[in-house]
Amino acid sequence: MKEIRIAVLGAGGLGKACLEVAGKKKEPRVVAICDSHGYLYSKEGIGLEDLKGLKPSKDPIGEIIKLRHRYDGIFVALPNLPNEFIPGVIRRFISAGYSGVYTCALKRTSAIKLMMRLDAGFKRNKSVYIAGCGATPGLLSAAAVLAAQSFTKVEDVNIWWGVGISNWDAYRATIREDIAHLSGYTVSRAKRMTDEAVEELLDKTDGRLVLHNMEHADDILLKRAGVVDSMKKVSVGGVMDTRHARKPVSTTMTLTGTTFEGKRSSHRFILGDETSMAANVIGPAFGYLKRAVWLKKHRIYGIFGSTEFMPMVMR
Amino acid sequence: MKEIRIAVLGAGGLGKACLEVAGKKKEPRVVAICDSHGYLYSKEGIGLEDLKGLKPSKDPIGEIIKLRHRYDGIFVALPNLPNEFIPGVIRRFISAGYSGVYTCALKRTSAIKLMMRLDAGFKRNKSVYIAGCGATPGLLSAAAVLAAQSFTKVEDVNIWWGVGISNWDAYRATIREDIAHLSGYTVSRAKRMTDEAVEELLDKTDGRLVLHNMEHADDILLKRAGVVDSMKKVSVGGVMDTRHARKPVSTTMTLTGTTFEGKRSSHRFILGDETSMAANVIGPAFGYLKRAVWLKKHRIYGIFGSTEFMPMVMR
Repeated sequence: MKEIRIAVLGAGGLGKACLEVAGKKKEPRVVAICDSHGYLYSKEGIGLEDLKGLKPSKDPIGEIIKLRHRYDGIFVALPNLPNEFIPGVIRRFISAGYSGVYTCALKRTSAIKLMMRLDAGFKRNKSVYIAGCGATPGLLSAAAVLAAQSFTKVEDVNIWWGVGISNWDAYRATIREDIAHLSGYTVSRAKRMTDEAVEELLDKTDGRLVLHNMEHADDILLKRAGVVDSMKKVSVGGVMDTRHARKPVSTTMTLTGTTFEGKRSSHRFILGDETSMAANVIGPAFGYLKRAVWLKKHRIYGIFGSTEFMPMVMR
Repeated sequence: MKEIRIAVLGAGGLGKACLEVAGKKKEPRVVAICDSHGYLYSKEGIGLEDLKGLKPSKDPIGEIIKLRHRYDGIFVALPNLPNEFIPGVIRRFISAGYSGVYTCALKRTSAIKLMMRLDAGFKRNKSVYIAGCGATPGLLSAAAVLAAQSFTKVEDVNIWWGVGISNWDAYRATIREDIAHLSGYTVSRAKRMTDEAVEELLDKTDGRLVLHNMEHADDILLKRAGVVDSMKKVSVGGVMDTRHARKPVSTTMTLTGTTFEGKRSSHRFILGDETSMAANVIGPAFGYLKRAVWLKKHRIYGIFGSTEFMPMVMR
């Protein structure tokens, strides 16, 4: 079994979870990580406890780019906001000639659209980028591709998630991204909010954020895979409880369609309530990273959606 | 959009459903079909109504082999019994130098094992065979690969299906395959049963067959994909009602595992009760056929399990 050496961009909730998941598996070895203030490299692998030793840097991404021959793949766990941020970071890797694979848990349709424009750059560098490899898009949109198989017409795909976290301050960026989906909020307004302003908002809703018609890239990725003929047939929403680890609703993907015999029905994929956002994001992201390595090995380059390939099982 | 020209081996319940599904889609065109007594070829495509015009032949498979340059892919909808039957038929295509793709809805582990031995032949002919592309194995085992992503340890995978058919005599071979799984029955005993003997057995159980620990290739295909470390962790069973079209239980794949945080939980994939066995088998089989065409185009040859790739959406 060949190890997969990984650089993790971002050391927030998801970045930290990456280190933990890698610690439980044989194949992935996180050898580099950075946040907005520092970075770390270790050939032997980085554990959660090593994070306090991050080396300060004015350009941590630049430092990770310098190390580009020391890892096979990158998992992008940077804040999703603003939409241009992650594509801008990736452009730097392309310009530097990085040849390897990437996965991300990008969520917004507009951000994924920006990423798709980098296809030629990935191909030039013989690289593979699989976009939207978290839970949604990712695990649940891939399940929609499977569910679609039974139908000759797909009516709609509905993703309704529940997330419960007891410590929202460990997911500061994620919570702001969710707030940006609320009516009356924008991406820039949410990003500018102080922690106190977030607390105040959460106090009004007993710690819950109920989100409808979120801009989630499940729509573009399912259209790309041919599951729906219009992005409007995909809807994503959910309930985030910031005060209880228990999920307020079971995360469910429901695909409704009509079979060749004219029967209307729905297939469902339901995530166990005890599974955390981190488990449902990092697991798929690693599985898709292994698939990306497979694609590169077979000289299939460019950017793809998580709806196009089965993630592999990272041992 | 390039059409995919398909030869269907077998004109029983599944073979007929193939013609119907293809009639509802743009990409697949069934140009050849055969049963044990005759065959048919039409460049323009074959519909259900054309089946009465099957040309009698002593070797219908041989006739389909002669036509091997006229289609892109083969869907094997032949009876699963005996285990050696389908591998034997496929060996004839390999010997004749057929270069193309195949999918099948083979169910038994021992039959898939025999198929796996033909890998070198497929590679030699620059062919792709994706095995076990129906509902189980197929749709449900692929869902298990997705579900596994969230866990660092997978405890077990349980597939429990419900099938309701009001006309068992349209699925004579399938019913005998199910009977072979019953305690006290063997593959050869089930195959030798007359229709009257089958009726008599069904009379005793009010038309229901309840099957536990079936020999289904989900086990070997999930082990191959790395989802489980032992085939024993996969169990397949279900309830077949031969007298009502309504499913006696909802077909469900349940994967139980432990996340990196040590939480035990289960993800589930549940098929809509209104979807028939035919819809849940033919849809995935066509989706995997399109994937097989994609693999061949990328010069990736050999035999693979349905757990290794995402089926594509056949438009």
